[in-house]
Amino acid sequence: MSSSFGRLFVVTTFGESHGPAVGVVVDGMPPGIKVEPAAIQRELDRRRPGQSAITSQRAEADRVEILSGVFEDASLGTPIAMLVRNTDARSKDYDALKDVFRPGHADYSYTQKYGLRDHRGGGRSSGRETVGRVAAGALARAALATVGVSVVGGTVQVGDVKAARRDWEVAEENPVRCPDAMAAREMAAVIMHARDQKDSVGGVIEVVARGVPAGWGDPTMAKLDALLGAAMLSIPATKGVEIGGGFGMCALSGSQTNDVFDGKRFLTNFAGGIAGGISNGADVLVRVAVRPATSIGKPQKAATKKGRTTTIAIEGRHDPCICPRVVPVAEAMMAITLMDAWLRQRALRGRDK
Amino acid sequence: MSSSFGRLFVVTTFGESHGPAVGVVVDGMPPGIKVEPAAIQRELDRRRPGQSAITSQRAEADRVEILSGVFEDASLGTPIAMLVRNTDARSKDYDALKDVFRPGHADYSYTQKYGLRDHRGGGRSSGRETVGRVAAGALARAALATVGVSVVGGTVQVGDVKAARRDWEVAEENPVRCPDAMAAREMAAVIMHARDQKDSVGGVIEVVARGVPAGWGDPTMAKLDALLGAAMLSIPATKGVEIGGGFGMCALSGSQTNDVFDGKRFLTNFAGGIAGGISNGADVLVRVAVRPATSIGKPQKAATKKGRTTTIAIEGRHDPCICPRVVPVAEAMMAITLMDAWLRQRALRGRDK
Amino acid sequence: MSSSFGRLFVVTTFGESHGPAVGVVVDGMPPGIKVEPAAIQRELDRRRPGQSAITSQRAEADRVEILSGVFEDASLGTPIAMLVRNTDARSKDYDALKDVFRPGHADYSYTQKYGLRDHRGGGRSSGRETVGRVAAGALARAALATVGVSVVGGTVQVGDVKAARRDWEVAEENPVRCPDAMAAREMAAVIMHARDQKDSVGGVIEVVARGVPAGWGDPTMAKLDALLGAAMLSIPATKGVEIGGGFGMCALSGSQTNDVFDGKRFLTNFAGGIAGGISNGADVLVRVAVRPATSIGKPQKAATKKGRTTTIAIEGRHDPCICPRVVPVAEAMMAITLMDAWLRQRALRGRDK
Amino acid sequence: MSSSFGRLFVVTTFGESHGPAVGVVVDGMPPGIKVEPAAIQRELDRRRPGQSAITSQRAEADRVEILSGVFEDASLGTPIAMLVRNTDARSKDYDALKDVFRPGHADYSYTQKYGLRDHRGGGRSSGRETVGRVAAGALARAALATVGVSVVGGTVQVGDVKAARRDWEVAEENPVRCPDAMAAREMAAVIMHARDQKDSVGGVIEVVARGVPAGWGDPTMAKLDALLGAAMLSIPATKGVEIGGGFGMCALSGSQTNDVFDGKRFLTNFAGGIAGGISNGADVLVRVAVRPATSIGKPQKAATKKGRTTTIAIEGRHDPCICPRVVPVAEAMMAITLMDAWLRQRALRGRDK
Repeated sequence: MSSSFGRLFVVTTFGESHGPAVGVVVDGMPPGIKVEPAAIQRELDRRRPGQSAITSQRAEADRVEILSGVFEDASLGTPIAMLVRNTDARSKDYDALKDVFRPGHADYSYTQKYGLRDHRGGGRSSGRETVGRVAAGALARAALATVGVSVVGGTVQVGDVKAARRDWEVAEENPVRCPDAMAAREMAAVIMHARDQKDSVGGVIEVVARGVPAGWGDPTMAKLDALLGAAMLSIPATKGVEIGGGFGMCALSGSQTNDVFDGKRFLTNFAGGIAGGISNGADVLVRVAVRPATSIGKPQKAATKKGRTTTIAIEGRHDPCICPRVVPVAEAMMAITLMDAWLRQRALRGRDK
Repeated sequence: MSSSFGRLFVVTTFGESHGPAVGVVVDGMPPGIKVEPAAIQRELDRRRPGQSAITSQRAEADRVEILSGVFEDASLGTPIAMLVRNTDARSKDYDALKDVFRPGHADYSYTQKYGLRDHRGGGRSSGRETVGRVAAGALARAALATVGVSVVGGTVQVGDVKAARRDWEVAEENPVRCPDAMAAREMAAVIMHARDQKDSVGGVIEVVARGVPAGWGDPTMAKLDALLGAAMLSIPATKGVEIGGGFGMCALSGSQTNDVFDGKRFLTNFAGGIAGGISNGADVLVRVAVRPATSIGKPQKAATKKGRTTTIAIEGRHDPCICPRVVPVAEAMMAITLMDAWLRQRALRGRDK
Repeated sequence: MSSSFGRLFVVTTFGESHGPAVGVVVDGMPPGIKVEPAAIQRELDRRRPGQSAITSQRAEADRVEILSGVFEDASLGTPIAMLVRNTDARSKDYDALKDVFRPGHADYSYTQKYGLRDHRGGGRSSGRETVGRVAAGALARAALATVGVSVVGGTVQVGDVKAARRDWEVAEENPVRCPDAMAAREMAAVIMHARDQKDSVGGVIEVVARGVPAGWGDPTMAKLDALLGAAMLSIPATKGVEIGGGFGMCALSGSQTNDVFDGKRFLTNFAGGIAGGISNGADVLVRVAVRPATSIGKPQKAATKKGRTTTIAIEGRHDPCICPRVVPVAEAMMAITLMDAWLRQRALRGRDK
Repeated sequence: MSSSFGRLFVVTTFGESHGPAVGVVVDGMPPGIKVEPAAIQRELDRRRPGQSAITSQRAEADRVEILSGVFEDASLGTPIAMLVRNTDARSKDYDALKDVFRPGHADYSYTQKYGLRDHRGGGRSSGRETVGRVAAGALARAALATVGVSVVGGTVQVGDVKAARRDWEVAEENPVRCPDAMAAREMAAVIMHARDQKDSVGGVIEVVARGVPAGWGDPTMAKLDALLGAAMLSIPATKGVEIGGGFGMCALSGSQTNDVFDGKRFLTNFAGGIAGGISNGADVLVRVAVRPATSIGKPQKAATKKGRTTTIAIEGRHDPCICPRVVPVAEAMMAITLMDAWLRQRALRGRDK
């Protein structure tokens, strides 16, 4: 169960970074939704390594194969299994790391948990696991589109550089996926600098869902905030989540942050589209803190399995900033979460919204 | 299911703010754990309104009654149901609000969700629902203590005032629950000022779990970060969560934020005690953004059910800053989350840790 | 989680037979359903001990208190908690049994599971736990009635005596709850004879749901057959379940047991209203094997905790045949199961049926 | 979620009978268990069509591919995905059936549920879905073997012929999988006769788990009886389940059916190894009613999608009696269910049993 997300739209991923394949089973897709393999592939291509100069050069084609649940390009209402073969897993790169716990990585905690570990990479902790999420997210997007809900996102901070604009259509036009063309160039420079230093840099992702009707989510344990928080913090390398005004609201007063509703719409959106855990009809707005990638070429101190210390430099084909590739994953998780909330609301009310 | 949290240590709350009672059923408590009613009551008293000058003056005794699952002060391994009667629910206070959607509240989203609403208060959206969480958290604490795990917490920011120290034992000695005695006084002043303005102010809570062994949590969908994120963002009025270095890491580099492990311990804790979703043996560290309370006496514009606008001032006995009362709730949710992760690890490995 | 049933209509019971109370939390009741306390009480009265000469004489009033989720006699869409106090738990009766494992009872397996046990009765294994199920079932019935679904049931076999008719309206008119008035008298005689022998006798319950539209249930793991099987076999003292033709079909051929559909209705009902796990519009028909009650006054050999053998006679106020009291429980579990299947179908299709 | 079974050992199947593949994801396998592909293949071969003269002649090699969760022949503790390609799906056979609801099949209920249907076979309702269950069961068996638990089973009734012996080692030596060599021959004759008549015949399967320690299962909703009931009734074509004495106990008295425990073992096993929902250390014993296969060559009346009636004869390669092929599936579901119960008990007690 620890590899599943959702209760009615259940997304279960499988696969190690250096095993034969990664994939996903999506159980709960309503029947009769148009499923275009090309749309799924397009999302996977956005997540794929090697898509630009600022991402990892691991050469995975990431071709998706749909194994079930789709007939004549429409969902059957049954589980949709999708598979992507691992083709460029250079396990040899990892031989030197067999007995060392890489700093910042899950090597140590993973070993303590399972008692054993496939040392040829991050296993399930690898970002490669997110392939299945992105494929599942494409299904969720297709279904949500039938009720007018769409999800966009981008990188809004890299290092100290912050986006000043939210031109979402611009985000896909630059390799950083920044919705501010000018900031994008600065961000790219920061990333290239980090790479030259054999180091990495962090950033912030923003994801927005538009068209979400009021009424999705629940008032207590399954608040939409909580589900989105879990969704985002289940993505590798994320260490923070904000909904709407987030941490910035702490220094403000209630009279400033109470969103005024004029009977038709909200004049501000400090709530990030969610009041009392339930969508209120405004844009659902989430920001995610992405830590600097832990795989760096710079020499670092590390402990060995035998309890000694050593110095390692993690060679290989790593991302100096993973924000651009986290964007499609965060969007997918947003879509998956909303999909689940939508289906719950259908169960509660017995109607489409 | 939307009122339950956890998979092996399942906490299900029930009760409206203005109904007969609030309570909780905890399913999954291992047998043979000492359960002291006084310890549960002590935690409820920390959450109770009216405990100091800076909290709501609603006079709820919040006496807990244990209905099942405990025999001769020990857990039986069966569901533990606990009940707290509502005694000071002044429903009359809310009659004027019957047809108005209070700004910042869940009134509108709640009505859209359910199609109807008990207008005599927040219903399930009320902070009163957290009574059950705190009682459940006391059970989780008791169980975790048997393996040396404890949870502490406090208010580390109110408005612009930040705590400079983390003297957790100091936190319970001041009404703000701030682990920095000096900052506590400034924070109290900020809160009193907000109250005088018939306004409210936000803040930040920090919660720390000590003694968590390496190996709890899962590498993908059930990352300990994700579960804690859901736990914290399911608390009313929270709009952000950070694990360890959180958003602050975004502007740093990997060589700065990779926690170095010397074979025995981590020299830094940017990961907040969780690497790849799995505890690494360091303190588990979470910060939570608490928005300014939405119930304020200051006049605000609001929409009526009929789509008109009006001006309302929410009289009543509200908290100008809810941070001090959120602290025990956030601690409880941390304990509940860890409890669940612990039991999963027992299932996986078949041994106590 | 082990005390919960259902995924969307989640019924969680709590309470030991000799603790302060038994009860239930129902999470997932749609909003706006009329909830009449009298209707709930009526069902509890059907399950109550002491209702006739052939049932246990334990004198429990079993008065239900609704703690949450209902406002002005309508469901709020939030968890409905219901409580029944234990008032006539004569714990003293059990002192002699403290160190003996009663034959047929769960005393031994329970002790092995938990390592400890409240010896003052069956604890959670007691039939008293079903109070919560019956209360939850009354809610499910009320909701199902809004779409024309109703549930009836009765005792169709006691010892060797089988009912030849299914006059369901007759079932409530005799203490055996048998839908065949003539057989009812014979059954009562068999039960009285068993009681005179300080022994007990088994039987078979039949439960029928009418008006279930085609399409509820799922084709694989969550077949409606499977859910009903779990529902029925979760009732104490049940050791068998049949759907439709059940075991009787094994000796027949496919050409005999394939229900012919004429485009409007099924001419036979060997499938028990469920084809491929999904309701087909015919009556949903389930039979349940109820073993002879394990508490008997006749002297039996038994093992003590210390591994010796002894002879015991279980005095007290026990049922010589529990079928009449299992009927309302089985009906409740049928209603709860269908409720869950209905809500899933609403989630899948986004409409009421 | 409707395609998943279990809570801690979660088995999720996917795949349509006439899609590209069928398969399974098993989440919750403990790490370090030896996983031999040959052992998995052996179980699949027992389920495979074409294995003898009395089974369907569909020629599926059913070669399993392990996609994840296994490294150097040991489980990693992560999800194990397994895949079997469909190679001999003769979709053409089904063209004539596109507009007809086959009697006894799920065609009608399925169409009502989903609003659409892949007419090229049973889709998810097909017995082909059980490939994934059998593969998952092989994993469960491997894990259970480490604590001395094993599962055997066989066909104990076909038509009117009942097995008089339970020589389980004999069961695999005859095509009927009957534990009574003499009865096996009679059963085979009954099956061949049904095939000659273009008809089918039902039967009863018995499955036994040996070595289950006392303490697995739960006292209320998750009784081991209930979980096994769901497991068995989720298998296609099953319409009844008995635990231990089952329906046969109804005509007996408590003094006959209370299993006497002498401090070491039970002298009888009417409880089927489960008392109060919890294993008691005796063999866990389940019987399953298997209806006559619904696909028969004999002409039958059937309804068309347009509401008319017609006569059809289902040509193709069908099983005249599916009992022999249900045996490995029922065994797999028993193993999966026990695996889940075992892991829950580990979570509850923090130790291996």
